[in-house]
Amino acid sequence: MMKILVINGPNLNLLGKREVGTYGAVTLDEINKKLTAQAKKNDVKLEFFQSNHEGEIVEKIQKASGKFQFIIINPAAFTHYSVAIRDAIASIDIPVIEVHLSNICAREDFREKSITAPVCLGQIFGFGPISYQVALEAAIKLLKK
Amino acid sequence: MMKILVINGPNLNLLGKREVGTYGAVTLDEINKKLTAQAKKNDVKLEFFQSNHEGEIVEKIQKASGKFQFIIINPAAFTHYSVAIRDAIASIDIPVIEVHLSNICAREDFREKSITAPVCLGQIFGFGPISYQVALEAAIKLLKK
Amino acid sequence: MMKILVINGPNLNLLGKREVGTYGAVTLDEINKKLTAQAKKNDVKLEFFQSNHEGEIVEKIQKASGKFQFIIINPAAFTHYSVAIRDAIASIDIPVIEVHLSNICAREDFREKSITAPVCLGQIFGFGPISYQVALEAAIKLLKK
Amino acid sequence: MMKILVINGPNLNLLGKREVGTYGAVTLDEINKKLTAQAKKNDVKLEFFQSNHEGEIVEKIQKASGKFQFIIINPAAFTHYSVAIRDAIASIDIPVIEVHLSNICAREDFREKSITAPVCLGQIFGFGPISYQVALEAAIKLLKK
Amino acid sequence: MMKILVINGPNLNLLGKREVGTYGAVTLDEINKKLTAQAKKNDVKLEFFQSNHEGEIVEKIQKASGKFQFIIINPAAFTHYSVAIRDAIASIDIPVIEVHLSNICAREDFREKSITAPVCLGQIFGFGPISYQVALEAAIKLLKK
Amino acid sequence: MMKILVINGPNLNLLGKREVGTYGAVTLDEINKKLTAQAKKNDVKLEFFQSNHEGEIVEKIQKASGKFQFIIINPAAFTHYSVAIRDAIASIDIPVIEVHLSNICAREDFREKSITAPVCLGQIFGFGPISYQVALEAAIKLLKK
Amino acid sequence: MMKILVINGPNLNLLGKREVGTYGAVTLDEINKKLTAQAKKNDVKLEFFQSNHEGEIVEKIQKASGKFQFIIINPAAFTHYSVAIRDAIASIDIPVIEVHLSNICAREDFREKSITAPVCLGQIFGFGPISYQVALEAAIKLLKK
Amino acid sequence: MMKILVINGPNLNLLGKREVGTYGAVTLDEINKKLTAQAKKNDVKLEFFQSNHEGEIVEKIQKASGKFQFIIINPAAFTHYSVAIRDAIASIDIPVIEVHLSNICAREDFREKSITAPVCLGQIFGFGPISYQVALEAAIKLLKK
Amino acid sequence: MMKILVINGPNLNLLGKREVGTYGAVTLDEINKKLTAQAKKNDVKLEFFQSNHEGEIVEKIQKASGKFQFIIINPAAFTHYSVAIRDAIASIDIPVIEVHLSNICAREDFREKSITAPVCLGQIFGFGPISYQVALEAAIKLLKK
Amino acid sequence: MMKILVINGPNLNLLGKREVGTYGAVTLDEINKKLTAQAKKNDVKLEFFQSNHEGEIVEKIQKASGKFQFIIINPAAFTHYSVAIRDAIASIDIPVIEVHLSNICAREDFREKSITAPVCLGQIFGFGPISYQVALEAAIKLLKK
Amino acid sequence: MMKILVINGPNLNLLGKREVGTYGAVTLDEINKKLTAQAKKNDVKLEFFQSNHEGEIVEKIQKASGKFQFIIINPAAFTHYSVAIRDAIASIDIPVIEVHLSNICAREDFREKSITAPVCLGQIFGFGPISYQVALEAAIKLLKK
Amino acid sequence: MMKILVINGPNLNLLGKREVGTYGAVTLDEINKKLTAQAKKNDVKLEFFQSNHEGEIVEKIQKASGKFQFIIINPAAFTHYSVAIRDAIASIDIPVIEVHLSNICAREDFREKSITAPVCLGQIFGFGPISYQVALEAAIKLLKK
Repeated sequence: MMKILVINGPNLNLLGKREVGTYGAVTLDEINKKLTAQAKKNDVKLEFFQSNHEGEIVEKIQKASGKFQFIIINPAAFTHYSVAIRDAIASIDIPVIEVHLSNICAREDFREKSITAPVCLGQIFGFGPISYQVALEAAIKLLKK
Repeated sequence: MMKILVINGPNLNLLGKREVGTYGAVTLDEINKKLTAQAKKNDVKLEFFQSNHEGEIVEKIQKASGKFQFIIINPAAFTHYSVAIRDAIASIDIPVIEVHLSNICAREDFREKSITAPVCLGQIFGFGPISYQVALEAAIKLLKK
Repeated sequence: MMKILVINGPNLNLLGKREVGTYGAVTLDEINKKLTAQAKKNDVKLEFFQSNHEGEIVEKIQKASGKFQFIIINPAAFTHYSVAIRDAIASIDIPVIEVHLSNICAREDFREKSITAPVCLGQIFGFGPISYQVALEAAIKLLKK
Repeated sequence: MMKILVINGPNLNLLGKREVGTYGAVTLDEINKKLTAQAKKNDVKLEFFQSNHEGEIVEKIQKASGKFQFIIINPAAFTHYSVAIRDAIASIDIPVIEVHLSNICAREDFREKSITAPVCLGQIFGFGPISYQVALEAAIKLLKK
Repeated sequence: MMKILVINGPNLNLLGKREVGTYGAVTLDEINKKLTAQAKKNDVKLEFFQSNHEGEIVEKIQKASGKFQFIIINPAAFTHYSVAIRDAIASIDIPVIEVHLSNICAREDFREKSITAPVCLGQIFGFGPISYQVALEAAIKLLKK
Repeated sequence: MMKILVINGPNLNLLGKREVGTYGAVTLDEINKKLTAQAKKNDVKLEFFQSNHEGEIVEKIQKASGKFQFIIINPAAFTHYSVAIRDAIASIDIPVIEVHLSNICAREDFREKSITAPVCLGQIFGFGPISYQVALEAAIKLLKK
Repeated sequence: MMKILVINGPNLNLLGKREVGTYGAVTLDEINKKLTAQAKKNDVKLEFFQSNHEGEIVEKIQKASGKFQFIIINPAAFTHYSVAIRDAIASIDIPVIEVHLSNICAREDFREKSITAPVCLGQIFGFGPISYQVALEAAIKLLKK
Repeated sequence: MMKILVINGPNLNLLGKREVGTYGAVTLDEINKKLTAQAKKNDVKLEFFQSNHEGEIVEKIQKASGKFQFIIINPAAFTHYSVAIRDAIASIDIPVIEVHLSNICAREDFREKSITAPVCLGQIFGFGPISYQVALEAAIKLLKK
Repeated sequence: MMKILVINGPNLNLLGKREVGTYGAVTLDEINKKLTAQAKKNDVKLEFFQSNHEGEIVEKIQKASGKFQFIIINPAAFTHYSVAIRDAIASIDIPVIEVHLSNICAREDFREKSITAPVCLGQIFGFGPISYQVALEAAIKLLKK
Repeated sequence: MMKILVINGPNLNLLGKREVGTYGAVTLDEINKKLTAQAKKNDVKLEFFQSNHEGEIVEKIQKASGKFQFIIINPAAFTHYSVAIRDAIASIDIPVIEVHLSNICAREDFREKSITAPVCLGQIFGFGPISYQVALEAAIKLLKK
Repeated sequence: MMKILVINGPNLNLLGKREVGTYGAVTLDEINKKLTAQAKKNDVKLEFFQSNHEGEIVEKIQKASGKFQFIIINPAAFTHYSVAIRDAIASIDIPVIEVHLSNICAREDFREKSITAPVCLGQIFGFGPISYQVALEAAIKLLKK
Repeated sequence: MMKILVINGPNLNLLGKREVGTYGAVTLDEINKKLTAQAKKNDVKLEFFQSNHEGEIVEKIQKASGKFQFIIINPAAFTHYSVAIRDAIASIDIPVIEVHLSNICAREDFREKSITAPVCLGQIFGFGPISYQVALEAAIKLLKK
C-alpha cells in the first residue's frame, strides 16, 4: 500500500482559527480529514505532520526515505528562506510537491520567490484547501504511471 | 452543463513531436483526449484552443465571458512578458488556472517570473501532462463548491 | 484637410463593457464619437483603429506615413514591452502622442515604465476618456503652429 | 466662477531666456498670457505662482484648499525627489495635473521617474508650452463633468 | 489587570555578559527587573520569554492570543529573515511593538531591513535598555486610550 | 533646567486638519500641549518648531548647540532625501531622536529608507501622537542617566 | 541541393525606405537579390520571409524542420523580448544564425540583451547588409564541414 | 577685471567650528580670506555666498549670468540630490567647478554619486581648504587661455 | 590540553548515506574519527556536535566560551541566512573557522554569499572531508603561535 | 595591397591543445593558415598577433594606425573588463571586428557583456574557427565597398 | 629638493595625436614640459612615467616609496577596474592625486566609478591639460603645509 | 617526486615590508622558506613565482601543465577581475587552490566576489601566512589520496 507524507510548516496549525477572512474557516484537521477520505478511495495511506520548527521539518523529510512514496509539503513561511529544508528535499529520492493555500504571486514581493520549488517536482497554489486535494490527486496519478 | 476552456500558447502544438527528451512523447492531442475523458466523467464539456499568436489568445479569453465557467491556460512563452494576456485575464470574471508542463522554477532565470500568475486564481506546474489533469480536477472541485 | 489616426491597443475593445468600476462605463465607440465631433469642429478628419494584435498595429503605423499628420495611440499592454511598436513609431516621420486612460504611475510597478514614450512626442494619462480629447486638442494646436 | 492655480517649479522663471535651443523662445509670462486668454473664454480664473523654493511650493499647495478647484503644476526638478511636494499634493482634496514642457522619458535616466505623479490625477508632457494649454483644457473638461 | 508579553530573540540571553563594549553591562535580568517595577506602577503584569529557537518564539506568539493585551518583542537576528515570526505576528490580533537596543540603521547594511516591522504597530530602537522601557510606556499609553 | 527642542517637518502643520482618516484628528498644537504638560512634570522645558523649508530646519538644528540637551525631530518627507538635515544633525553634539506618526515600514517602498536615522540616536514610529510622548520619555530617561 | 531560410522581423520591410540616415538606402529586396546571387554561386537555394507578426515567425520556424538545413534570422525588435521565438528556435534541430544590421551594443541599453542569441548557433551584427552576406557565408562553410 | 563667484552649500557655515576632527579647524571666513588674497594677485575679484537654502543657491546661480566669468561651488549635501541646482548650472553659460573638502569617494556610499558633476566643467575634491585654492587656480588658468 | 569544538549544520548527518555522487561515500562519523586521530597526535581534544536546529547551534556556540580554544564549523545551509549563528559567533571570543565540503562558489548563485564568514577568522572549502582536516591543521598552527 | 591585422587575446595560444572537447582540435596556427589562404585569394595580406598581455595588445592596436585597413580581434577574456583595449580601439580610425569562437551569450553570465563591442564596427561569434573566416570575409567586403 | 612622480596610464601616449576633437591637440610631452616649468618655479623636481601595462604602473608605484613626496596619477582606463593599482597606492605612504583630462561623470556610465579614488588623497578632473597643472599646484601647497 | 607551484599576485612582493599593521611583519621570502621546509618533510618540491603582471601569471599557469601536480595561488587583486587568469586555470588539468592572507569577506564589498574561485578546487583564506601552509597541507593530502 502506497504511503504519502503531508507536511505543514509554521503557523498552519492556526488555519481556520485566525485570519478567517484571508484563509477561510477550514481548519487543518478538516483539510486532513478530507485528504484521508480521498486517499482511502485510492488505497493510499497518509501521514500528517505539522511543525513550527524548521529543524523538525528537516528531520521529518530526512526520515521519510524508504517509508513514503511521495511528500506533499506546504513550507509556509519557510518557502522563502529555508535553505535547510531545500537541502533536505534535495538529499532524498522521494518526489515532493510544494503546495500553498493562497496565490503567492499576488501577495508581498518577497513571497513570489520560492527557495524550495526548484528542488521539488512541481508546485500547486492558489486554490485554498483544494490545493492539497489536487496535490494528492497529482501524486496518485504520478505513482500510478 | 459546465463548460471549461483549455488554452495552449506558442510552440505547444509541437508537443510530443520534438524535444521528446525534455517534454516527453505525449502530443497535445493525446493530452486533450485524456482531459476530455476525465471531463466527461464529471459532466463537464471542454473546448480546446491552441495558438502561436498572442492576439488570438487575447481574443479567445475576451470571448470566453458568459460561455465558460473556468479557463485552464498554459501561456507557454507568453507567461513571461505578455501584459496583453494578463490584462485580458484580469478583464473577465471567469476564474483562470495557469498550468505548465515543466518546473519553471528549475530552468532559466527569466522563466521563474510569471506576469500572468498574479491575476490567475492559482498555478500548477511540474507534472508534465498530469499538470493539466489536476488543473481540471481543481476546476471541477472549485465549481462544485 | 488634416487627418489624424487614433490607434487603440489590446483589450480596449472591452472598454465600458467590463471592469466598469475601474475604467468607467464609457465604451470605445462613445469615446470615438465624442472625438469625431470635436475633430469636425476643428476641420480635422479622424480614422479609428483598434487591434489586439501587435503586428497589425505595427503595420497600421507603417502605412500611416503620407496619409496622416498625427497619430494618437493608446498602446495599452503593449506600452510596457513592444519594442516592435516602438521601432514602428521611430521609423515614421509623423508625430505621435501616447495616451492612457488611467494614471499608469499609480498602478503596478511594471506599468510605470513605457517602452514607447521615448520615441513619442509626448504622453497624456490619467483623465479617463478625456485623455483622448486633450490629446486631440494638443495635436490640433501643434498642427496649427 | 471656477479658479485654477498654476504652479511652476525651479528654473522655469528662466524660460525663453536661456537654453532657447532646448526649451524654445517662449517666456513663462507669454505662456501665462495665453493661458489667461484661454481661461477667460471658459469663464475660469487663473492664479500663477512660480518659485525656486520647495517650501514655498509646499505652502502654496497647502493653502490652495477651499480656494481653487484645480491645480496645474510643473514641478520641474522637484518632480524627481521632492517627497514634501508629493505629500502636500496628497494632503489636499483638489485634483492636480502634472505638466512638463519636454518629454521626460527621452532625457537623462533619472528624469523618467516622477515622485509626484502617483498622487496626481494625471500627467501631460512633451508638447512645450502647449502642455500647459491642454492641461487647462483637461481641467476645464473634468470640472464640467 | 492588563498583561503584556515581552519576547527576546537569539543571543539576547548573553546581554551584559559579552560584548559589553557594544551592548553595555546591563543583563537581560536587570532590564526585566526595571520593566517589572515600571509595570507595577501602572498596574500592568509582565511575562518574560527569551529563546534562541525561532519555532519557540512563533509558538509563544501564537499562544499569546486571549492572554495578553500587548507584545513587546526584540526579535534580534530573526528581525532580518524570519518570515515565520512575521506570519505569527500577523496572525494574532494583539498589537506588537518591535524593539532594538542598538541603532539598526547605523550598522551592517543587512540590518537596516526589518522583515517583521511592517506587521508590527511600530518600532523603537537605539536607546539601549531604555528602548524596552519606552516601549512599555507606549504600550501602556496605547492601552489607556 | 533641561531644554528639549521639538522639530516638525513639512506638511505636519496640517495634522488633524486633513487626511484625518489616516493621521487622526489630533492637531500639532494639541500634540504640543500634551508634550508641554508631560515635560513640566519632569522639569523639562520644550521649544517647538515646525517648518516646510529644509533650510530653516537645517539652521534650527545648527543653532540648537549649547541651548538644548536633546532634539526630537519628525523630519516627515525630508526623512527620505535631505542629506542637508542629516549633515546638520551629524555636525552638532546634541543627541537626536527621530519620530514618525505612522509605521514607515508599512507604506510606500521609498518611505522604508531613512537618510537621517543613521546619524540619530534612535528612532520611534508607528504610535501616532504617542510616538512623540515616548520620544520625550526616552529623552528624559537618557538625560537622567 | 541545400536550402536556407532567411527570416526578417518587424519593420524590416521598411528598410531603405525610411530612416535612410541610420540604416542606409538599401532595401530588403536588394539585400535579398544579392543573397540569392551569392547563394546560387554556392549551389544553395534561399527562401525569404518577412513578417511583423511574432506568431507568423514562430510558425515559419516550426515548419522549417525537414525542409531547410539552416536559418538566418534578423528578429529585429523581437530580439529583446520574444520568448516565443526563442522557444521555437530551441524546439527545432536546424542551426540558426542571428543577424543584425546595426551594432546592437552601441545603441539603447535594452538592445544589448538578446533573448534569442543563447539558443542560436551564433550572432553577427554591425555590418549593415553585409551582415546577411557573411551569415550566409558562415552557413555555407558550416554546412560544408 | 574678471569676477568669480564662490558658492558654499548647507552646513559649510559651521566649518572650523564643529567636527574639527574631520574637517579641520579652518573656518569658511579664513578660507575666503586666503582665496581673496590669491585672487588679488591674479587681478580677479571674488564674491562669496553661503546658504543652507537650496532655492537661494538656485537663484544665486541664475543671477550670475553676465556678472561672473566663473563659478566655484561646493554644493555640500545638495551634491547628492538637488536636481534644481543641477538644472540651474545647466541653464547658465558660465563654466562651473565643483569642489569638496573631503574625498567623497572614501565616505558613505551615497556620497560617491554627484548629481551636479555631469553639468559642471570639472570636479576637485579631497584637499581640504586647498581644494578651493586649486579650483581658483584652475579657473584663472582656464580664463587666461 | 587544548580543546576544539567541531560543529556541523543541517543535513550533514546524512553525509555518505545519500547523494554519494556529489558528496562522496565518507560518513560524518568517519570524518570525525580521522579528525580525532589527527587531533590526538597534536595533543588536542575534540568535541563533535551536529544539529539540524539553528537554535541548538546558537546555544552550543554560546556555551563554548571558556571551554574551547577554537571552533570549526560547517554551518551548511545556515551559512546563507542565519544571522542568529552569525551573532552567536560574533558574541564569543573564540576564533572560528568556517568549513565547507564543496566549492560553494561553483554552485547555485545563492550559495556564493556567506552571512557567517565575515565574523569568522577564515574560511576553507572545496576539499571534501579534507576541508575539515586542514581546518584542524590551521587551528593547531594558530594556537601554537 | 590591403593589410589586415588579426589579434588574439589571452589563452588563445592554447587553442586545439587543451579543452579540446569545448573548443575543438584546431590550433591557432591552423586557423591562421586557413585565413592566410583565404586572404591571398582576395589580394589581402594578413599579420597575426597573439598575446596574453593586455598592454601588448593595447600597443599593437595603437601602432596599427596607418599600416592596416582593418583589425580582426578576439579579445578573449579581456572582452569583459579591458577598458584599456576599448580605449585603444576607440582611439584609432581603423574599423575593428570583434570575434569569438563560442557563443558568449550561452555561457556564464559575465561573458554576455562585452566592454569592447560598443566601439567595434560589429561582432561575430559562435562559429568556432569559421568565426574568423567570416570576419575576414566581412572585412574584405566592407573594404571593397 | 622635493620630488613628485607623474604617472600616466594606457593610451595617454597618444594624447594630441588622435581623437583631437575630444582630447585636444596638446601632446603628453607638451603637458610634461609645462609641468616641468611650473615645478621649477617651485623648486620641485618631476619624474614622468607613462605605461600601457598595469604591472609596470604597479611596480613604479611600489618603488616610489622613499624617493618621492607625492604622486600625480592619471590611471586612464585602469581607473575603472585595476584593483592591483589601487592596492599598490594603498600600500605606500606617499599621498596620491588622481587626475583626469575629461569630466568622467559626463561620459559612459562605467567611467563614473573610480576604483582607485577611495585610496587617493583626492581627485581632479575635467580641465584638460590644466587638470595636471592644478594637481601639481595642490601637491605643492600640501607639501608646504 | 611531487612538484607544486606557488604563485603570488600583485603587491605581494611587498609583504612584511609595508602595511605591517594589516598584513603582519612576515615577508614573502619567510613564508616561502617555511613552506619549503614543510614540503621537504613531505617529499614535495616547491617552485615559487611572484608577479605584478597578469600576463606573466597567465603564462606561468599555462606552462605548469605536465610539470606540476598542484598549484597554490594567491591572485591578490587579480582575484576580483582577471578573467584571463580564470580562463588559464580552467584550461589546464592541474588542481588549483586559491589562498588569501586576510578574510576577504570582512573587507571592502568588491573583495567578497572571487572571479577565480569557481574554477579552482577550493579556497582558503583568513589565516595570514598559515593560509599557505594549510593549502600545502591540503594539496599533499589530496595528492596522497
